[in-house]
Amino acid sequence: MSTQRPDGERYVALSGGVGGAKLALGLAHLLGDRLTIIVNTGDDFEHLGLHISPDVDTAIYTLAGVVNPDTGWGRRDETWTFMAALQGLGGPSWFKLGDADLATHVERTRRLGAGETLTGITTHLAERFGVAARILPMCNERLRTVIETDAGALAFQDYFVRQQCRPSVRAIRFDGAQAAKPSPQVCAALADPALAGIVICPSNPWLSVDPILAVPGLPAALRASGAPVIAVSPIIAGRAVKGPTAKIMRELDLEPSAARIAGHYAGRIDGLLIDAEDGALADAIPIPVRSARTLMRSLDDKIGLARECIDFCAALQAKAKRPAQSAGGRL
Amino acid sequence: MSTQRPDGERYVALSGGVGGAKLALGLAHLLGDRLTIIVNTGDDFEHLGLHISPDVDTAIYTLAGVVNPDTGWGRRDETWTFMAALQGLGGPSWFKLGDADLATHVERTRRLGAGETLTGITTHLAERFGVAARILPMCNERLRTVIETDAGALAFQDYFVRQQCRPSVRAIRFDGAQAAKPSPQVCAALADPALAGIVICPSNPWLSVDPILAVPGLPAALRASGAPVIAVSPIIAGRAVKGPTAKIMRELDLEPSAARIAGHYAGRIDGLLIDAEDGALADAIPIPVRSARTLMRSLDDKIGLARECIDFCAALQAKAKRPAQSAGGRL
Repeated sequence: MSTQRPDGERYVALSGGVGGAKLALGLAHLLGDRLTIIVNTGDDFEHLGLHISPDVDTAIYTLAGVVNPDTGWGRRDETWTFMAALQGLGGPSWFKLGDADLATHVERTRRLGAGETLTGITTHLAERFGVAARILPMCNERLRTVIETDAGALAFQDYFVRQQCRPSVRAIRFDGAQAAKPSPQVCAALADPALAGIVICPSNPWLSVDPILAVPGLPAALRASGAPVIAVSPIIAGRAVKGPTAKIMRELDLEPSAARIAGHYAGRIDGLLIDAEDGALADAIPIPVRSARTLMRSLDDKIGLARECIDFCAALQAKAKRPAQSAGGRL
Repeated sequence: MSTQRPDGERYVALSGGVGGAKLALGLAHLLGDRLTIIVNTGDDFEHLGLHISPDVDTAIYTLAGVVNPDTGWGRRDETWTFMAALQGLGGPSWFKLGDADLATHVERTRRLGAGETLTGITTHLAERFGVAARILPMCNERLRTVIETDAGALAFQDYFVRQQCRPSVRAIRFDGAQAAKPSPQVCAALADPALAGIVICPSNPWLSVDPILAVPGLPAALRASGAPVIAVSPIIAGRAVKGPTAKIMRELDLEPSAARIAGHYAGRIDGLLIDAEDGALADAIPIPVRSARTLMRSLDDKIGLARECIDFCAALQAKAKRPAQSAGGRL
């Protein structure tokens, strides 16, 4: 299978935070401005009077090459004078805001206050950071991921950062979803006739991808695009690479496995890319599966996985054009 | 005249920004927690979604010993990562906000949003900075100094910082003054039976002290205190030590001189402390005058001038208790 795809082909990635941004970076290396990343904003929150969009910022910083390589979020070569001073004044310090990172939040908040949309602001910021790929918040409206836990209903950042994902998850809801809609830019990206594939990055399906799919009309727009939709399993050999995916699956009585990820996305994806370690699971998954190395440590890993995704989409596209075959199988 | 005043005696200072804070620092060295500083908030403004109180912060930072010694405002050992990043994003960069300084504005704004008063927040901040003197905003309400110039009506910081005081001043007004009132803490400080003197610091009378005196009821409270009220002339030999005082006086058709400062405060002060260089003017000033070195370069200068102020108040107090004398004269 070749990755020398026609130059005009465009791709869309759906991404949450750190894990998703890694694959998005790989895709961006191959696709440049032919990549659009639709980013989860269910994690957005208001803190210290600022509108913070953690996943959008992680996408921007990662693609701009300014992300902190140690954490995967925040900026490299950051200073922490503000945070230390705020702590000295008794201000809330559970959410770490570096001095340079703070400028992003202040400028976003200022522009929102002036009536700009989250989409317009994100485009402005990404341009300022020199990002060629298009980074789009999934919607402009306020949709907030709320985690119902044994410790009560928690706003996302409260659960994720302040409480370090310790409470046990019972359910997840998306406040404000009813009033949300895909932005015109998201709709345009999905309606583009040059769209050759949609890649759901290996972000947490429940916390990071489901909020995107909770935007009314967005799943239908994915299907209506006609492009193959694939997901990359965030579970490798029963474990999550990072974050609470496996823990949450167990709390939701779901066995952490690539097969269960396929089940979660059933009807919404055309193929699942699983880790080579999980190759034996392929036959248990009723949709086309490709296995590859999915752990992304180096930039080469990211580009390699991105290439697999593009090839997988191409294979699914080619298959769709051939006479009917069995639903599942390896591609 | 001795500065060994009874231990219980308390003093109030009225102060604007940098120049006033210098004398306030001298007074604080002599008086510690027996000093209350009523600070101008007519310069306050909302910027980048933050409530910024420049004069209050200058007072806190100066008395806490953390002020930038080169500028007289902002914090020493400051970093500027935020500002550089904001500029990189195309955000407004005309008002310089250091990373540590920013924490003060963010925390103030956060607490205002939570319903705390400016007075309560200032007290909290001053305590956190280890300031023994009481620092009080003149009022909790929004009073805004507006400069009417040949370039139109300008918000204070627009005139002062963005336009560097270049436009010619025609008049100064205090928007919102009607609805303002001295805070309970300001009233209590002025009603304290132990109050032995009130010192109007050598801040700009038009830009920095008049907003304080524009708070309805505040001038009456000064007089009702029964304590001598003195002012320190910010004009030395026809020039302002710093800032646009002399320029503004000329634009208002007022000759820049200590005598004209006395005229400005006529009826509101009991004595004027002028620079030794202006000693010859004393006879032209129809209220008691004391001359001393008023230029404050070193900490000793500040403490020395503070001592002169305290002695002057004591002399005026003593004089008031003696049989009637002429209105003017040297004390």
